[in-house]
Amino acid sequence: MTAAILDGRLLAEKVVARATGDIAALGRAPGLATVLVGDDPASALYVRNKRRQCVAVGIRDLHRRFDADVTQDELAEAIRALGDDPGVTGILLQLPLPPHLDADALLALIPPDKDVDGLTETSAGRLALGRPGLRPCTPLGVLELLDAHGATLSGAEAVVVGRSSLVGKPMAQLLLGRDATVTVCHSRTRDLAAVCRRADVLVVAAGIRGLVAADAVKPGATVIDVGIHRTPGGLRGDVDFPAVSAVAGAITPVPGGVGPMTIAMLLANTVTAARTL
Amino acid sequence: MTAAILDGRLLAEKVVARATGDIAALGRAPGLATVLVGDDPASALYVRNKRRQCVAVGIRDLHRRFDADVTQDELAEAIRALGDDPGVTGILLQLPLPPHLDADALLALIPPDKDVDGLTETSAGRLALGRPGLRPCTPLGVLELLDAHGATLSGAEAVVVGRSSLVGKPMAQLLLGRDATVTVCHSRTRDLAAVCRRADVLVVAAGIRGLVAADAVKPGATVIDVGIHRTPGGLRGDVDFPAVSAVAGAITPVPGGVGPMTIAMLLANTVTAARTL
Repeated sequence: MTAAILDGRLLAEKVVARATGDIAALGRAPGLATVLVGDDPASALYVRNKRRQCVAVGIRDLHRRFDADVTQDELAEAIRALGDDPGVTGILLQLPLPPHLDADALLALIPPDKDVDGLTETSAGRLALGRPGLRPCTPLGVLELLDAHGATLSGAEAVVVGRSSLVGKPMAQLLLGRDATVTVCHSRTRDLAAVCRRADVLVVAAGIRGLVAADAVKPGATVIDVGIHRTPGGLRGDVDFPAVSAVAGAITPVPGGVGPMTIAMLLANTVTAARTL
Repeated sequence: MTAAILDGRLLAEKVVARATGDIAALGRAPGLATVLVGDDPASALYVRNKRRQCVAVGIRDLHRRFDADVTQDELAEAIRALGDDPGVTGILLQLPLPPHLDADALLALIPPDKDVDGLTETSAGRLALGRPGLRPCTPLGVLELLDAHGATLSGAEAVVVGRSSLVGKPMAQLLLGRDATVTVCHSRTRDLAAVCRRADVLVVAAGIRGLVAADAVKPGATVIDVGIHRTPGGLRGDVDFPAVSAVAGAITPVPGGVGPMTIAMLLANTVTAARTL
């Protein structure tokens, strides 16, 4: 069989259109404070993209930039001030930070209801306890892709490869919240291919190029590839796309799958936060 | 084969002895504030047991009792005061509370470093993110039982049946933190016995008497039964003990397995909290 392609670009556009409508309906523009420290070109590029997309949907761009030698206290004071500012409805601290700064301590200063990246301890706790809250953008985007495809999650066997705080762990919690039977695999898993073959829904977020081959996929399964690797031949994922797409029922491409969903879900989270505050 | 019996009473005594030694080494007595609201006999009994065991190991008993008609504000004020009191190193809010009170809002007032039950959003977030913190007592006791038995967790297939915030979900996180490949099952799981049969380590916390029979257990597996059910014939668990003990490699009895570990781990958590503060 040839797998259906789950088009993240198309879906991201729909999510963005929904966010635009939601913001118009809100009656007041959400304000997103993107906090960027230093001159890392990749971070600068990510933040620029986020700001551009925010402005395009009607979110106020409340960007704050700090030099690489900013002190912990100065940055903490700035984040506290953003937390107290009622015009700021979302705060995003771009990671990684320079090594002299304690990122976890700074993240902890973001009020949970403004934590549009869903990365604070409180947001992680709310997710773990199944309570309302802001969720990390990438796993939320994966869920949106699965829903748009009409994947059945309740009672399904879902396998998540990878256990990062950013993707794997929250992904497992979200799938559990949707009543899937969820298995989390990682570098210590004994027979990864055998465990993956159980999956009706397989989410791969291991950060290892081509880790999942055709022998790790049950015929007809839905396969979501969160990996992104630059190669001379272009962007590749954690899944061997040509081989797996001959076995899977549905699959995300790289690029154009999960990637475009992440920023789209940031916009959606910014709307959710503005609504809650 | 006949399974080894994992004796929770014996191990709980060891954990208590260790806590007693740790407290002596601390040089100052931890102080545990048990907060009891109303006259529920079961809650009163639990709190009485906890207080008695605390006193026995050298923890100061800072019990607070409130009438069932206490207001949210009064209770919130009391918990805030305990949070601010440096002599109080642990706070335990006995649940359930009368229905007019918002338990989650009250739990949120417990400083995370005094949260000896590990039930606050912050504690759940710290566990989910793999950061140091106080963990819920029952899953911590299960881990202690597994370790005392010498069970290999790294690379093992662990299956947790049940996804409560009190046991199933934190249990899965703890096992994942120990490098097991972890699956969480629940009422929507399609073929529960088949999924359980994959387990090298099977933790059953479903609250359904006799749910796990011999056909759900791989020969030689380690089986932990968190269930407790009163029957005319005595206490029973979620596992069909006579049948499963003929298949498993090791098994906890009910009573005398996980039950005694829960209070023991509360004492251990109270020591941990006192050390951190």
